[in-house]
Parts: sequence; structure tokens; C-alpha cells
Amino acid sequence: MRLAELSRRSGVSAATIKYYLREGLLPPGERVTATQAEYGAEHLRRLRLVRALVQVGGVPVARAREVLRAVDDAGQDRHGRLGAAVWALPHGPEPEEDDPVTALARERAAELTARLGGSGHGEGQAEGPPHRMLVSALAALLRLGYPCELEQLLPYGELAARLAVHDLDVIERYEPGNAQVEAAVALTVLYEPVLLALRRLAHAAESERRYAAPERRPPAGPVSPAAGEAGR
Amino acid sequence: MRLAELSRRSGVSAATIKYYLREGLLPPGERVTATQAEYGAEHLRRLRLVRALVQVGGVPVARAREVLRAVDDAGQDRHGRLGAAVWALPHGPEPEEDDPVTALARERAAELTARLGGSGHGEGQAEGPPHRMLVSALAALLRLGYPCELEQLLPYGELAARLAVHDLDVIERYEPGNAQVEAAVALTVLYEPVLLALRRLAHAAESERRYAAPERRPPAGPVSPAAGEAGR
Repeated sequence: MRLAELSRRSGVSAATIKYYLREGLLPPGERVTATQAEYGAEHLRRLRLVRALVQVGGVPVARAREVLRAVDDAGQDRHGRLGAAVWALPHGPEPEEDDPVTALARERAAELTARLGGSGHGEGQAEGPPHRMLVSALAALLRLGYPCELEQLLPYGELAARLAVHDLDVIERYEPGNAQVEAAVALTVLYEPVLLALRRLAHAAESERRYAAPERRPPAGPVSPAAGEAGR
Repeated sequence: MRLAELSRRSGVSAATIKYYLREGLLPPGERVTATQAEYGAEHLRRLRLVRALVQVGGVPVARAREVLRAVDDAGQDRHGRLGAAVWALPHGPEPEEDDPVTALARERAAELTARLGGSGHGEGQAEGPPHRMLVSALAALLRLGYPCELEQLLPYGELAARLAVHDLDVIERYEPGNAQVEAAVALTVLYEPVLLALRRLAHAAESERRYAAPERRPPAGPVSPAAGEAGR
């Protein structure tokens, strides 16, 4: 397809596509005349990933380029490409160095991943960006005096491990190779707000279940009276 | 305690505390002389929450003020105050109006919350900010052609419901009243990066389990050979 068609099918303006081409986020098309190039399905797929990263995930263009370089690294196996691509994503503030609270957070993170080890929290992750993101998040909890004990953290880790199994099952429906690695990166980014929104909704639901005045609770089952309008 | 002591114990500079006082994020202390005021444990607690919101969560000051107003709203019961405070948090981009993809995302979100209804996804949530955050996140998936079927989403919703039970158990250890609502809001914000970091780590671990070359896998149990150094 030509650029105009690629723009129509991707919903990305021709100017933005040209910008992505210049910035190396999109491989060049196959040149057919001096001024025209032909684009294929892989360009369409790559554009989706770029939009997921840049437009939805807010990943800076330079960072997105690194992610894509890892996706395309034919010298790595699937695990290596996936890992490198996710490591290249932004991970929030780095943990502070040489700080006793960070040292404690590091210890807590190491205990946690050791305890989750049974579910396969891999080696070599201890110095990666997701691990540093965890240390940074735990340091914030500790610094502010909020609960950060292993028993608080373990359920989070166990549920994350289950989500990972589910997510990789979804990803395996994509064709092995670039398409699969691209989908994995896009879904890592795009499901994060889904997860956070569902957690906030679930909090509201659980708070309602526990604390709402009875007339504000939705009917619990066929025998309960219809919920009243009082207190709304 | 005096301002200097409050600064020392909270780790927040005196200048920042004065700024928070001026902006109404912190209630005034009890005036003891023309130039000095006395602060109590509730100021220390409130400062922790403000830091969680503003410094860690990146919540703008004006938005933080709204969150705190909801926390302090004595006219509301616990469920109402908690809900209002979380609704006042930033929720990312609003869903686009009058757009067929958003309409489909809205439908998908409604189906999902209906299916999760058994775990108590409350009434009145359908138009709240966490619900709109969900619609927006699903619209992004749909627009980019990534999987967004109910079977993909349900495990996320079910795990979020479990986290909510766990989280409210943690929160109930705080004294009912302001302390509890403040902790709930702080933990909503502070555990989000913990959850995202653990999900990324779990992805890496599951990818390693499935795809890493055998010599890169950590030993699976006592009988397995020591992991080699090849391929690192």
C-alpha cells in the first residue's frame, strides 16, 4: 500500500507517519518510484505499536526507538528481545542511592522476589529497571511510614504472577517472531491503565460492600429488598 | 510540636510546609504566640498523605486540595468519603465523546463490571472517573486492534477484586475516621507503582520460564543441574 492508504488504515496522519519514518520508529517502505514507496502489513503493525507506546503510554520518541531496536534485535531469542524491549520502557523515578531507606527497600524487594521465586521470578532481574521501579515504590511506602511488610506485598506478587501467565497465553496467539514481541510490548503498556482502573473500581465496590449504609447497598440477592433511593 | 520539629519528623522542609499551609493542604496549627503555632500528630499524618499525593503520585496541588476536602467531609460516611477522595485523584485522559470506538469500549466496560457484579462492582460507579478511566483504556486497546474481549479482561477484574479485599483489610488496621480514610487514599496511590513493577517482573519471570534457552533458566529444583553461565 502507499502512504495515503497506510495513513487511512492506521488512523495516523501522513505527516506523523513521515515523522516516524524520519525518526527511525518505522522502517522505510520499498521504494517504487523516485517519490513513492510501498508499505506492507508489517508497517501497519509497527505503527500500532508506536502509537501504543508514544500516544497512549506517553513514551518519549527517543525511548520508543530503543524499545523498537530491542524488538528487532535478531541476535536475541524471544525471551531476550521481550525482556530488552520491556526494560527500555520508562520505569518512573530511579531509587535514591546511598540512602538507608532505599537500602531497606532493596532488602524488602529481594525478600519478596525470593519468596515469589517458586513462581519463577527470574535471575538477572535484580538489577533491571522493573526491579528498580519496585525498590523505588517500596522506598516511598517506607519513607512515609505506610505498610510495606512481606505479608502486604506477597498477595500483589502472587496476583501479578497469575496475570503474567494469562498475558503470555494471550500473546502466544500471535505469530512467533516480530508480531509476538510487538504485541507483548504493546499489551504491557496498554493493560497497565486497565489494571489500575479495575483496582480503583474494585476498591469502590469493596468499600460499598463493607461500609455503605444498608439503603445504599445494591440488592445482595433475590430475597433482599430493592435498594432504596435514600442517601444517594 | 513547633514547625521545626514537624519539619524534622516529616522530612518535609519548613518552606514546603509553609507552602502547604498557605495552599490549604495542611490545616493551620494552634497559634501559641504571634509568630508560632503548635502542630500535632494529625499534622504529621496529613503531611504524609500530601507527600504521597503530590511528591510520589504527581497529583497537582489543586487536585490534592480536592482530595483532602473529600477526606475531611464530615457530612459523609466512610464509604462516601473514601469514594469521593479516590474520585478526586487524576484518572488519565477522558474517553472521547461521540466516537464509535468509545461507544464499543463503554459497552465492553459495562459487560465486564456486570460480570464482576458478583464481587460487588457497585452501583453509581458507572459514571465515575475510575469507570471512565477503564473506558478510555479499553478504547485504546480497541482502536489499536489489540485483544479486548471479555475473557481477556475478566481475570484482571477478578484479581483486582481480590486485591481490594486485601487492601481494605490492611486499611482497617488504621483507626476509623480521618486516619483510615487518609491511609486508604495514600495506599491507593502508593501501591499502584508496586503493582505495575510486580507485573513487569512477573512477565519477565514467566517469559524466562517459557522461552529462555535451557542453560539460561535458573535451577527448577533440588535435582536440577546448576544453571550454566552460557548465554548470559
